[in-house]
Amino acid sequence: MSVKVALLGGGVVGTQVARLLQEGVADFAARSGEPLELVGVAVRDLGRDRPGIPRELLTDDPRALVTRGDIDVVIELMGGIEPTRELIELAIANGASVVTANKALMATHGAELAEAADSARVDLFYEAAVAGAIPLLRPLRESLAGDRITRVLGIVNGTTNYMLTKMDEQDASYDEVLAEAQRLGYAEADPTADVGGEDSAAKAAILATLAFHTNVTLEDVYCEGITEVTKADIESAREMGFVIKLLAVVELTDDYTGVIARVHPAMVPRTHPLASVRDAFNAVFVEAEAAGEMMFYGRGAGGQPTASAVLGDVVAAARNRFSDTSSHRPAPYADLSVRPVGESKTRYTVSVDVADRPGVLAALANVFADNGVSIQTVRQDQTAEGAILVIRTHIATESDLSATVDALRSLEVVNRVAGVTRVEGESGS
Amino acid sequence: MSVKVALLGGGVVGTQVARLLQEGVADFAARSGEPLELVGVAVRDLGRDRPGIPRELLTDDPRALVTRGDIDVVIELMGGIEPTRELIELAIANGASVVTANKALMATHGAELAEAADSARVDLFYEAAVAGAIPLLRPLRESLAGDRITRVLGIVNGTTNYMLTKMDEQDASYDEVLAEAQRLGYAEADPTADVGGEDSAAKAAILATLAFHTNVTLEDVYCEGITEVTKADIESAREMGFVIKLLAVVELTDDYTGVIARVHPAMVPRTHPLASVRDAFNAVFVEAEAAGEMMFYGRGAGGQPTASAVLGDVVAAARNRFSDTSSHRPAPYADLSVRPVGESKTRYTVSVDVADRPGVLAALANVFADNGVSIQTVRQDQTAEGAILVIRTHIATESDLSATVDALRSLEVVNRVAGVTRVEGESGS
Repeated sequence: MSVKVALLGGGVVGTQVARLLQEGVADFAARSGEPLELVGVAVRDLGRDRPGIPRELLTDDPRALVTRGDIDVVIELMGGIEPTRELIELAIANGASVVTANKALMATHGAELAEAADSARVDLFYEAAVAGAIPLLRPLRESLAGDRITRVLGIVNGTTNYMLTKMDEQDASYDEVLAEAQRLGYAEADPTADVGGEDSAAKAAILATLAFHTNVTLEDVYCEGITEVTKADIESAREMGFVIKLLAVVELTDDYTGVIARVHPAMVPRTHPLASVRDAFNAVFVEAEAAGEMMFYGRGAGGQPTASAVLGDVVAAARNRFSDTSSHRPAPYADLSVRPVGESKTRYTVSVDVADRPGVLAALANVFADNGVSIQTVRQDQTAEGAILVIRTHIATESDLSATVDALRSLEVVNRVAGVTRVEGESGS
Repeated sequence: MSVKVALLGGGVVGTQVARLLQEGVADFAARSGEPLELVGVAVRDLGRDRPGIPRELLTDDPRALVTRGDIDVVIELMGGIEPTRELIELAIANGASVVTANKALMATHGAELAEAADSARVDLFYEAAVAGAIPLLRPLRESLAGDRITRVLGIVNGTTNYMLTKMDEQDASYDEVLAEAQRLGYAEADPTADVGGEDSAAKAAILATLAFHTNVTLEDVYCEGITEVTKADIESAREMGFVIKLLAVVELTDDYTGVIARVHPAMVPRTHPLASVRDAFNAVFVEAEAAGEMMFYGRGAGGQPTASAVLGDVVAAARNRFSDTSSHRPAPYADLSVRPVGESKTRYTVSVDVADRPGVLAALANVFADNGVSIQTVRQDQTAEGAILVIRTHIATESDLSATVDALRSLEVVNRVAGVTRVEGESGS
């Protein structure tokens, strides 16, 4: 007897998974209850040499592999939406449990795939889709099942965290660090999905769905990348004791009836545990009512770390096969409404380029007050042509803040609003 | 239909668990598949008022409660070894799954209780026994099941971490911070189990058992507390860029055939993620072959955080009841040998009070070399009577280091060996 495993995708992660599966045969048998047997690997190019994968396992027909009828677990590492979605559906329909690292797919078609898996009484696991090797989804789903999660703040994209770390530590510009990240292989030739925030937004959708038992998809997530973050923003944050991070924030509204999911650069106090997450590392900070604050930290990407997360899921699926069950997936029973980012509440730093003359601060302060935004601190920096006022607010809704910024722009003494940055991770109100 | 839950213990954590269970009835039904029903709470003193626990649920006969025959899940929060162990065995024999936060019990009788639960096909969960609210044991057991864990470094005792943080930040003495910790309720009137390291050692035994699939008990753990840590040690560490933490270290030997478990104060570089774990927080740093380095951070104690971990386990046990299964617990199949601390390898800082005359350093350096311990750096501080040499070593075995220290003591130029501290968390060799 063995648990038969099929692998879709022979890229970096796929090759690692195949290698680790075959090296660890004895261990996996002990851990899963039965040995795991890799019976096929679907790849695009049969001709390419793939060290560690026996040639006779290779096929270029993934459809035939997932429908052959004796597969217990399908590992999907080919990426993309189609035909991947269809292949996973076929695998489930053929009675296989599925392990995937495909965040884009889970963030768009997660609900329907989970439903299909539930009806078929098979598992659908995707620990590797968010924060790579860090065990995160299982703890959220299972360990915190007896608590109420109120907020998740995550650094879930290694590329952008690497870039922001270098901008902060080496005083480098956005373009310089992007070029360096591309040279080192941390950023793709086309870095849009990373620097534009979409990769983080897909992960935010998955985190929100799990944390709040509510179906949240990629298009529900407000998304702003790091392309507008300048050296000056980072210096200014540093002077105030903050660091700029690209955060995925998913949170319950105060009345517990809604969910807001957003991705954007934010100022984080240097004393916050997320501030010390450097380079390409990932970390996810979770706030729960009873448990309080927690953080999960580790490697968010890379062949081996991702393979570790995939194989953890494979062992869990194999154990369930062995004991003839599947993990109970609570449906998105809470079914909260997804609210627009305008309803989100946080602190802000607003930098305003103003004429340097008496009464300016009073004029600005009135605008904030009229729009219900309370000011925490103001700092004034003289410049050649006038002054920059850096105003930090108390907690305000995004829509009140937007109205404030619009009103500031129409003030005669305001040359321009130079920057608006959200502040996360400060305690108090 | 409901999942019937019995609670043993009406203390701080028990009261929180009962309250959260009753407040969250609807949520727990959705998460577990069936509603959870608290059917009895065994307490020592029936007369005491326990807000949130209906009086008719109270009993002072725990034995009758666990043997009444219709209990699905028993939550054990009474602590101690006997009669607790016997009550848990009775509960298992009567077909109930068990959730416990009892680290001392799990570190001494964990293997036999797990075996009993396995034979009875019920669950035995104990997430709350290590690092309170931090989801740690389930990730180690399940998420990393496809990887090889090589080392776990944990700050798992909040009392001592609070004390060491204050000694570092407020330049306070051991006695001052102990008194403050007692005043604030962080330390017990008799703080022995915390400051002596035994509490951490119990957790180390549990971590080693899970991480290395090998039965490790409390008596297998080398244990040294913080009672000898002085203000001077902390200052000296600070000057070298380190902070002193009480660590629970469990690790595989280099050849993967043995396990070493130890608890002792150690110098940790300030740049290491564990160094920034302050006050009563806990954190566990895990090194795995494929996943790399990970850290889990959060609240290690307190009624609500512990209740969160307990309820997560209760929901998991209830889900398993609902789907008529129990979590497959891999037996300690690896069955590695537990090695003495003398075989452990780490770096050390050795402070030696010496006569201030030529040739002293050469004499000391010879002693290190003769015992196979390689020196990394030496610093010399002048004192009124002579000099203090602070020697940091490369990686050495504990037994070689001990032999070195013995030989140093017999040198004529050595007044005394003022301190030996292990250094953890530095990379390289």
